[in-house]
Amino acid sequence: MKPGTALNTENFIAQLSIDCVVFGYADMQLHVLISEFLLPGNIWTLPGGFIGQAEGIEDAAKRILHERTGLENIYLEQFKVFGQSDRVNEEVKAALEKSPGLLSGRPFPLNAETLNWLSERFISIGFYALVDINKVTPRKTEMDESVAWHPIDELPAMIMDHNAIALEGLKALRENLDNKLIAFNLLPETFTMRELQELYETVYDRPFPRNNFQKKILDMDILDRLEKQFTGAQNRAPYIYRVKQKT
Amino acid sequence: MKPGTALNTENFIAQLSIDCVVFGYADMQLHVLISEFLLPGNIWTLPGGFIGQAEGIEDAAKRILHERTGLENIYLEQFKVFGQSDRVNEEVKAALEKSPGLLSGRPFPLNAETLNWLSERFISIGFYALVDINKVTPRKTEMDESVAWHPIDELPAMIMDHNAIALEGLKALRENLDNKLIAFNLLPETFTMRELQELYETVYDRPFPRNNFQKKILDMDILDRLEKQFTGAQNRAPYIYRVKQKT
Repeated sequence: MKPGTALNTENFIAQLSIDCVVFGYADMQLHVLISEFLLPGNIWTLPGGFIGQAEGIEDAAKRILHERTGLENIYLEQFKVFGQSDRVNEEVKAALEKSPGLLSGRPFPLNAETLNWLSERFISIGFYALVDINKVTPRKTEMDESVAWHPIDELPAMIMDHNAIALEGLKALRENLDNKLIAFNLLPETFTMRELQELYETVYDRPFPRNNFQKKILDMDILDRLEKQFTGAQNRAPYIYRVKQKT
Repeated sequence: MKPGTALNTENFIAQLSIDCVVFGYADMQLHVLISEFLLPGNIWTLPGGFIGQAEGIEDAAKRILHERTGLENIYLEQFKVFGQSDRVNEEVKAALEKSPGLLSGRPFPLNAETLNWLSERFISIGFYALVDINKVTPRKTEMDESVAWHPIDELPAMIMDHNAIALEGLKALRENLDNKLIAFNLLPETFTMRELQELYETVYDRPFPRNNFQKKILDMDILDRLEKQFTGAQNRAPYIYRVKQKT
């Protein structure tokens, strides 16, 4: 689907959306990528979009995330469908009522067809995605006023159930971080054991005893320990690790 | 939604379905409830249906399951969305091509409107459900030729990806049986430790050492041990357990 494709049933499946909880990690905090919708009044949303008629749902999620992050191979996973019967975007309706002249003669993206589409009841498939925050330069789509990272503890009030979706995404991340070994998607290619432990402590919001943590991780035999680089105080420099490459 | 409600966008959300993997346990085998579709040619399907415009997805799944089982309070959980781009019901199309006179002047459920609806691309939300098989008398809906239990190892070839959905449902059951303590939904109200262990061994398809299993279950402190009933050989009768009632 090209950006700017009109929102109608010829192009997309109606009443079904994808909403993405994109997690990045920086400054010992989890961050979530959120968009400000291109309407007056600071309408915040999770990055989302629709499913092309000839597009699989995973491909649709990848496209939606590529548009906002520029990344091609994002780790993502569907985690829950949000489908209560009253799931309607009241915020968009209210913004239009406040600015009735907004749509007159406007081309896509904010013409009447788009707003009719958006004001239906939607069922939304939630995906969470894990990225190395350093690799992402947030990018606007034609529907966004802005796109930016926010610490998960400081998210603004978003439309509909999007704050609840973000919390459910965090819950899914906590359930899967350990047993699916996906934490490394949130880190740069190389990292110290301490950095990995800090990430775990941030996600689970509790301390992990250092010796146990290191033993548990090393016992999994999934990391390569790289050679220490020579420094003036070599014996105090921490080891650097990298996930073993599949051969 | 009443049985017999016409399939159109006024009543239901288009291109979105629910498919249910209903698990029952009998004879030390997991069984799955499947339907035979009301068209010539033995078209097997998982019990499924659509989401009413004013209906939440969990309510839709409960309604779909109530129609086939008669049960009101079924344990169910969404586990995955199936959304590849070519997810189209070719079997229904083929059956119609073989019997072109089938629809002429027919009322619901098999009129042209229904078949047009069914032949679109669908995205399907998979739910699994756990029931006490002794409490279920399988019932047909107006779309079914028959509804019956089949051992999961002996399922016939079903439409589209329904066999894959059943296997994904089993995978979700295995992931959740233990950590969500949902096994008891597959058992009668009272059971012996041996019966519980046999259920675990069936779902995971491996033996569990008896002493460890019993200790693990009892340590959870979720079961009440009932008084032994007097029998001629009382000391050999096994204890009977029941899940603690929430107070």
